[in-house]
Amino acid sequence: MMKDRKPVGELKINTDSFLPGVSIDCVVIGFDLEKLHILLLKWKERDLWMLPGGFIHLDEDMDQAATRILEVRTAIKLPYLAQFYTFGDVNRLEKNKFPKDAALHGKEFDNLRPFLQKRFISTGYLSLVDMNNCSPTPDILSDRCDWKPLNRLPPLVLDHDEIIKKAIEQLRSRINYMPVGISLLPEKFTMKVLQALYEDILNKKLDRGNFQKKMLKLGFLNRREKLLSGGAHKAPFLYSFNEKRYNELVEKGIGYIS
Amino acid sequence: MMKDRKPVGELKINTDSFLPGVSIDCVVIGFDLEKLHILLLKWKERDLWMLPGGFIHLDEDMDQAATRILEVRTAIKLPYLAQFYTFGDVNRLEKNKFPKDAALHGKEFDNLRPFLQKRFISTGYLSLVDMNNCSPTPDILSDRCDWKPLNRLPPLVLDHDEIIKKAIEQLRSRINYMPVGISLLPEKFTMKVLQALYEDILNKKLDRGNFQKKMLKLGFLNRREKLLSGGAHKAPFLYSFNEKRYNELVEKGIGYIS
Repeated sequence: MMKDRKPVGELKINTDSFLPGVSIDCVVIGFDLEKLHILLLKWKERDLWMLPGGFIHLDEDMDQAATRILEVRTAIKLPYLAQFYTFGDVNRLEKNKFPKDAALHGKEFDNLRPFLQKRFISTGYLSLVDMNNCSPTPDILSDRCDWKPLNRLPPLVLDHDEIIKKAIEQLRSRINYMPVGISLLPEKFTMKVLQALYEDILNKKLDRGNFQKKMLKLGFLNRREKLLSGGAHKAPFLYSFNEKRYNELVEKGIGYIS
Repeated sequence: MMKDRKPVGELKINTDSFLPGVSIDCVVIGFDLEKLHILLLKWKERDLWMLPGGFIHLDEDMDQAATRILEVRTAIKLPYLAQFYTFGDVNRLEKNKFPKDAALHGKEFDNLRPFLQKRFISTGYLSLVDMNNCSPTPDILSDRCDWKPLNRLPPLVLDHDEIIKKAIEQLRSRINYMPVGISLLPEKFTMKVLQALYEDILNKKLDRGNFQKKMLKLGFLNRREKLLSGGAHKAPFLYSFNEKRYNELVEKGIGYIS
């Protein structure tokens, strides 16, 4: 499964080809069947982490740029990527320690430095992926590209902690009116795993009986075979998503008005 | 009520003071107790309309810029203004007839023209206002600033039709999980008016009995006195929002998981 992890991307960057004033940051969320994780790149030789990000070419749609950036910086191709918020505070570049002092001082960064030191607004893109089905790989600016548990994030550059917080808020508000999980879970999963996902997004415990009843009533789950286990306890059922019904509910919402 | 409608704003614009590459467009929505309306500016001497928009000063937060722009271009001060989407397609400036030929050719636009002809992404801001409680006023680039019914919009510049469409989609998805109306309606209103608002946002008819039952059950309405009317038919009750409960439901959402 794990491929040769040669860094992706290259450094021949012509800053004139970019739209000035705007960057993109991608919050890639995974779920290891217990906890939510965020995909982060580690700045070379520093304990400082960042979201995969970059700039928009002048001849490129912003959505295309987000897809390209994620692929170039982490080597993963994505099933789902959508913008969730644009961060436009004046002081966003100074919120955490930006590694001005330690990074970007090789000669190869000469043409990049003036561009990077200007003010940017940044559009955040959210991606939900099946962690077991992708092999993140660091790019040439980083020496690691790892999944980090949401509740124990390492030190982050700039306002990346706020960007992640906003992405989770988005996911949380979405859970109020549409099903969630199709990109985050493997094909088959137990009700317990689905509940753990909902609990981690909502950051609270849910009642097991009520949760199961509500989920089944909405009809977006298919019951499959029982989970094979060697244990003495009762084997739970596996479920998969009924994609047609799931997409219908994403489209029209699970509303209180209908 | 109607004040002297001297145009707002002025034309001494120094484009160097703006963040390049980014603009702001404001979708201001009102409700006249029957239909949703959008606030639009009319380009001078052309039957071509636009959303109130502008640019971000280098020393200004994006949210501050949106507030300033709306005030400078329409003279209204706003209770509620929040970004809803950022429009980043390469060809967005060519989607409709931009009035390049007719406008911006006075000498006073000399310094503005090169700036305006570059590519921008644009962040859309949504505002919900009580139409009866504000006096929109055109700015110096426009000769009208009017409320136009959503279902009969005039010809619009650029991709402003798409920006409006997206704003309404946002409002529609919001209605699935939170109460809506507190900024759009006068202090007291009938259930019929509230239903007309929901129907126009959802673009479908709702059952009167069900609608009333659901609204009352959620507890964000206070029943007030009856509407005084000279007619022979039964006078309906007036309602107002219970702000505390309303805000609670906006905060935590009206979810199917709780």
